[in-house]
Amino acid sequence: MSRKRPLIVVSNRGPVTYDRDEHGARVERRGGGGLVTALRGLREEHDVTWIASASTEEDRVVAREGGTEVVLVAHDPSAYDAYYNVIANPLLWFVQHSLWGLADAPELDRALHDAWHDGYVEVNAAFAGAVVAQLDNNPDAIVFFHDYHLYLAPRLVREARPDALLAHFVHIPWPGDLSTLPSELRQPILDGLLANDVVGFHTERWARNFVHTCGDIGTTTVTHHAISVDAGEFDALARSEAVHEQEQLIARGEKLIVRVDRTDPSKNIVRGFHAFELFLAEHPEWHRRVSMLALLDPSRQAVPEYAAYLERIEQAVEAVNGRFGDERWLPVDLQVADNFPQSVAAYKQYDVLLVNAVFDGLNLVAKEGPLVNTRDGVLVLSENAGAHEELAPWAVSVNPFDVAGQADAIHAALTMPDDERRRRATGLREQVRAHGIAAWTSAQLADFDAALARRRSRNVDA
Amino acid sequence: MSRKRPLIVVSNRGPVTYDRDEHGARVERRGGGGLVTALRGLREEHDVTWIASASTEEDRVVAREGGTEVVLVAHDPSAYDAYYNVIANPLLWFVQHSLWGLADAPELDRALHDAWHDGYVEVNAAFAGAVVAQLDNNPDAIVFFHDYHLYLAPRLVREARPDALLAHFVHIPWPGDLSTLPSELRQPILDGLLANDVVGFHTERWARNFVHTCGDIGTTTVTHHAISVDAGEFDALARSEAVHEQEQLIARGEKLIVRVDRTDPSKNIVRGFHAFELFLAEHPEWHRRVSMLALLDPSRQAVPEYAAYLERIEQAVEAVNGRFGDERWLPVDLQVADNFPQSVAAYKQYDVLLVNAVFDGLNLVAKEGPLVNTRDGVLVLSENAGAHEELAPWAVSVNPFDVAGQADAIHAALTMPDDERRRRATGLREQVRAHGIAAWTSAQLADFDAALARRRSRNVDA
Repeated sequence: MSRKRPLIVVSNRGPVTYDRDEHGARVERRGGGGLVTALRGLREEHDVTWIASASTEEDRVVAREGGTEVVLVAHDPSAYDAYYNVIANPLLWFVQHSLWGLADAPELDRALHDAWHDGYVEVNAAFAGAVVAQLDNNPDAIVFFHDYHLYLAPRLVREARPDALLAHFVHIPWPGDLSTLPSELRQPILDGLLANDVVGFHTERWARNFVHTCGDIGTTTVTHHAISVDAGEFDALARSEAVHEQEQLIARGEKLIVRVDRTDPSKNIVRGFHAFELFLAEHPEWHRRVSMLALLDPSRQAVPEYAAYLERIEQAVEAVNGRFGDERWLPVDLQVADNFPQSVAAYKQYDVLLVNAVFDGLNLVAKEGPLVNTRDGVLVLSENAGAHEELAPWAVSVNPFDVAGQADAIHAALTMPDDERRRRATGLREQVRAHGIAAWTSAQLADFDAALARRRSRNVDA
Repeated sequence: MSRKRPLIVVSNRGPVTYDRDEHGARVERRGGGGLVTALRGLREEHDVTWIASASTEEDRVVAREGGTEVVLVAHDPSAYDAYYNVIANPLLWFVQHSLWGLADAPELDRALHDAWHDGYVEVNAAFAGAVVAQLDNNPDAIVFFHDYHLYLAPRLVREARPDALLAHFVHIPWPGDLSTLPSELRQPILDGLLANDVVGFHTERWARNFVHTCGDIGTTTVTHHAISVDAGEFDALARSEAVHEQEQLIARGEKLIVRVDRTDPSKNIVRGFHAFELFLAEHPEWHRRVSMLALLDPSRQAVPEYAAYLERIEQAVEAVNGRFGDERWLPVDLQVADNFPQSVAAYKQYDVLLVNAVFDGLNLVAKEGPLVNTRDGVLVLSENAGAHEELAPWAVSVNPFDVAGQADAIHAALTMPDDERRRRATGLREQVRAHGIAAWTSAQLADFDAALARRRSRNVDA
């Protein structure tokens, strides 16, 4: 596995983005998101060229200059807007997380069709062009596409380079039914994904759903490997001064329930508060002894569905605090901010970690928390989070729609005997340490090798 | 196929219901619904005992007296309310038609869990008890369960009568993902269905989804046969005086678009009006030449979701008529009533029949309309209606969420050349005539025979 390979990684957001400082000098910022962290190992050990969208003015300058390790693709701004803000989010995100009530939404109008043709198709073509140009320099490179922004690019690359090895990893759920999308979108999406030699998901469930959706319209190798975190990085973070400072600020009573999420409807934050409210209503013996700390990173507030969701979050918190709180006790402490050291501090301190996502491709909170928690905290985990497939033996499982079940789970977690808590917390920690990000990366490379071997044996047969 | 068989049909609504007239004499009314019509053939040719819920006071008297051909089961009224109005509708109906926006609804609270245990489980047990009592009289009878009300009964019968031949037909869609239901409900539902020797659906798609949902938790024979209508009955209806009278009342211009539905969110009525509005906005050349007649049977108005949906229907109609109508032209003629002769009259007269259901187990409108239409009318049909699997070659297919696509389909249907219209209308009519209700009944009996043969060969092996 240690052989150095040529790889072309393709994703909408890249590992760096550029700006100019006050003196006009170019500055480089590390891109956000788990993918950048996850692929750091790949970049350290292999020849990686990363193709991503230019996202700032300075990125566009860099794009014109042409890069070597990072290639930025400058898209037409209105095409990018249609691609990103109409098609990828919310359409594909909402469809793949089953967030829409199909009785009323979505309504796919003329503007949606235009956004598809003039935005999503357009931007995917630009990505495919950048990949083909890279393959001209580096014909043996393996192309590794990421996520729901780039479903069409593989087919375009395949047509131009029939012998290239193409792989695609989908980081979000694959639903059981894709019929929300009209065939004008659905067919090219499936056709695009099926142009890859390998399509990967985090879980067997999403992989099975994908195979089910494709039916008999085409074949590819479908694999599943759950992504993970870098345990060493979290150990260092947990010991850092920034995290210690945040720990001092956490107010806690006898027991602390924590949730850490983006304010995304897929994270199921409102039902979580309703469940905590029901728990408090049914268990007055816990009043003033337990509180919930909700650390929420504000997300996609330009999208109306997200702004409305944050309002409902605030209303749900007011309802719990108004009903049960007093001058001595704030049942729910809601913090809407992007503060990662605070999240790690809360991870260390929780007695219960609530992860009740409606649907989630994987959910890294469920892995990060147990890694650094110091109190044998209990993980309450949605059966629709991808991480559930791996962590269920040590978690308290909940159905995300079952508010009564979540109230019961909170009670079970708070009253669990110490030895049982320790057994589960240890199990979680050992599982995550034993299956870190390096294991995921190795599994991808093994899939690529197997696909290359198949491709070579086909070529010999032919 | 003509051998006379003993059959026990089990469904929530039965073929008859009883009342008392003004003189206190018992009167019998034929039950509503397509199932009663569909199974008429079975009852004429075989020894059928039908078990159903008592639904009136007089039904409860009949239940106490004990019947022979029709057995009415009198349930505890509050258990029945929980079973029918909380679990079967809306929970199972909404889940199986994918009508809920999972970001916000449903929230499964304590009352839902109580309704499950004290209602659905209870009523299913009562049905199972009635079936077992019948099997005592008639041990060789085949038991034929119907629909989503009775998912638990087969397992209870199986436990009491391991050798009985049990079959279940699910008349509504089976979704790609059943994870909206917590395992406390989901597992017994799947376990109940898997206790049958045969589980039938209208389409291959629902059958495949069911197999996908079951995964490896159990096995049964899964079949699919699309139910149909009695062509002779519709021919007679089309010639009846009641229908002729209604035909005189239909106001039409050059072209008439018709839809006939219950006011159910699964029927997608609001998006249909939005599509017609978009069509009129994009095609002013059709103003005053075409109108839409919407015949809507008010449905389940005691359920809040249904009452709200009817309001949105009325608002959507007002929007179209307010925007485009004038003293000479009413773009949409909305009739909210239960008037079957009027529906048949409209079937005869349409130029375009719009069936754009969000999801539909089958949809009989798509078969009834073409059978009696006299104008080579075009069927615009949702790809999520079960009937699409059979009728697609002759229909104009639409995605139910794609309002722009539906506007295009209306335009395509209105401007289709006469010979193409005739070819399609003839194809539809011939298909429905050749695959009437008798074919469906025969297919069920053939499935039962095959299952009996398997059961006997297993018993010989054992």
